[in-house]
Amino acid sequence: MTKQELTDQILKKQSFLCIGLDTDINKIPEHLLDSSDPVYEFNKAIIDATAKYCVAYKPNLAFYEAYGLKGWLAFEKTVAYIKQRYPQIFLIADAKRGDIGNTSEMYARSFFDNLNMDAVTVAPYMGKDSVQPFLLHKNKWVILLALTSNEGSHDFQLMEDVNGEKLFEKVLKRSQEWATKEQMMFVVGATQDKSLGRVREIAPEHFLLVPGLGAQGGSLEEVCKAGMNSSCGLLVNSSRAIIYADNTENFASTAGKEAQKVQIEMADMLRKYL
Amino acid sequence: MTKQELTDQILKKQSFLCIGLDTDINKIPEHLLDSSDPVYEFNKAIIDATAKYCVAYKPNLAFYEAYGLKGWLAFEKTVAYIKQRYPQIFLIADAKRGDIGNTSEMYARSFFDNLNMDAVTVAPYMGKDSVQPFLLHKNKWVILLALTSNEGSHDFQLMEDVNGEKLFEKVLKRSQEWATKEQMMFVVGATQDKSLGRVREIAPEHFLLVPGLGAQGGSLEEVCKAGMNSSCGLLVNSSRAIIYADNTENFASTAGKEAQKVQIEMADMLRKYL
Repeated sequence: MTKQELTDQILKKQSFLCIGLDTDINKIPEHLLDSSDPVYEFNKAIIDATAKYCVAYKPNLAFYEAYGLKGWLAFEKTVAYIKQRYPQIFLIADAKRGDIGNTSEMYARSFFDNLNMDAVTVAPYMGKDSVQPFLLHKNKWVILLALTSNEGSHDFQLMEDVNGEKLFEKVLKRSQEWATKEQMMFVVGATQDKSLGRVREIAPEHFLLVPGLGAQGGSLEEVCKAGMNSSCGLLVNSSRAIIYADNTENFASTAGKEAQKVQIEMADMLRKYL
Repeated sequence: MTKQELTDQILKKQSFLCIGLDTDINKIPEHLLDSSDPVYEFNKAIIDATAKYCVAYKPNLAFYEAYGLKGWLAFEKTVAYIKQRYPQIFLIADAKRGDIGNTSEMYARSFFDNLNMDAVTVAPYMGKDSVQPFLLHKNKWVILLALTSNEGSHDFQLMEDVNGEKLFEKVLKRSQEWATKEQMMFVVGATQDKSLGRVREIAPEHFLLVPGLGAQGGSLEEVCKAGMNSSCGLLVNSSRAIIYADNTENFASTAGKEAQKVQIEMADMLRKYL
């Protein structure tokens, strides 16, 4: 999917919501556990109930790998379902991969060639040649970790060099030498709203993927005030607050309502800050 | 496996060789392609031929994920085979994972609880709370990226703060506040032999996992001179130079001979530098 196509979807749906499919079998409604693939059944129902209100889904690989083969099968089926039923939705493999060139190429093959996903999250620690193999795939995206939403983001990402330049700023700058804004986005946590202005100075036109609303405590309005650019340029993620809003038999319709609430707030933000 | 048990294996086998199982279906002998699971058949033969000469195996997850479900099956079967036939061998998931706490916990569950592997490689960019969930598992190891073997290691890992402290040095120091040397090792590339002395100053007693011999150009003698401590403290990895030494029907025995050559060199190094 191109940057323009993604922006068009955002304007059309009046939403820049990304829903994180962090599906944990211990948190899904009990009545699903009798099915042969509860994780997939849960995802399918959540997707059907929320697809109108979001522009992206972000399955988190860890939650599928934790169930081994069955987990991978649920992951692949979920991806195929979204691709087939909702081909306009941007599909992110939240995998935080990144390794030497021949290995990153294998990860790229997995997510882009085999599964036809649109984007993969990548950790920058190993530098340029760990990111480049992902960039060789046309109309596919790297979403590079810059300033994450967790407490540990302070451990290294805020390290300053002798000129006062922070590690996350270096990541934002250096990686723009490797890729265009049509191929790369950055992860910036919603809890980092004080630094979002700085991120926008360095990367004014890039899309930012913003996790950390809800369970992690970030505020949508603060994120939009500091982070929205003239074509929106934001994908704001919510996982637990939507998909686990209700664990009765009504889980899917409740998730739909929660997603709709966020979409309405987002439409408001688009009117206010776009 | 404990640090002492691993050291005992090294002294017994006179080897600190780790063999990387980066198994690429396009590089394995043609006659295996008729089998129902060529990757597993290849691994099994390589393992049987080399287990005498090494103390660790390190399957690289990317190479298995690239084949989807079939790949995961081959990975799980390989892990189970090693665990059953060679329980004294240290088993590393080379996965370069690392995410917010609840997600890292899922990865830990996958590699430690489900597969009973001994260690997983972890990227430090997201800091303490992305690493900690892996540390809650008894006698299991985090192998944290410090100074990697690839060209891109220069992009961020060598960044210096105002006191001249480099990012990889900060990772080595800070992470020692999170974990003991019985739970954590560090990845230091064989191509970084000039910095190995500095790594040893900061982490004199930790095990180091050293990739980058062979295809990537590092030298075993330089690594041992700068990196070996009084209980060895090294796991030196070789992947392609051993597993793809020969792609005829004799591939396994050739791999065995290559592994034996390295083991003999390593015995020599142990006499010289231990």
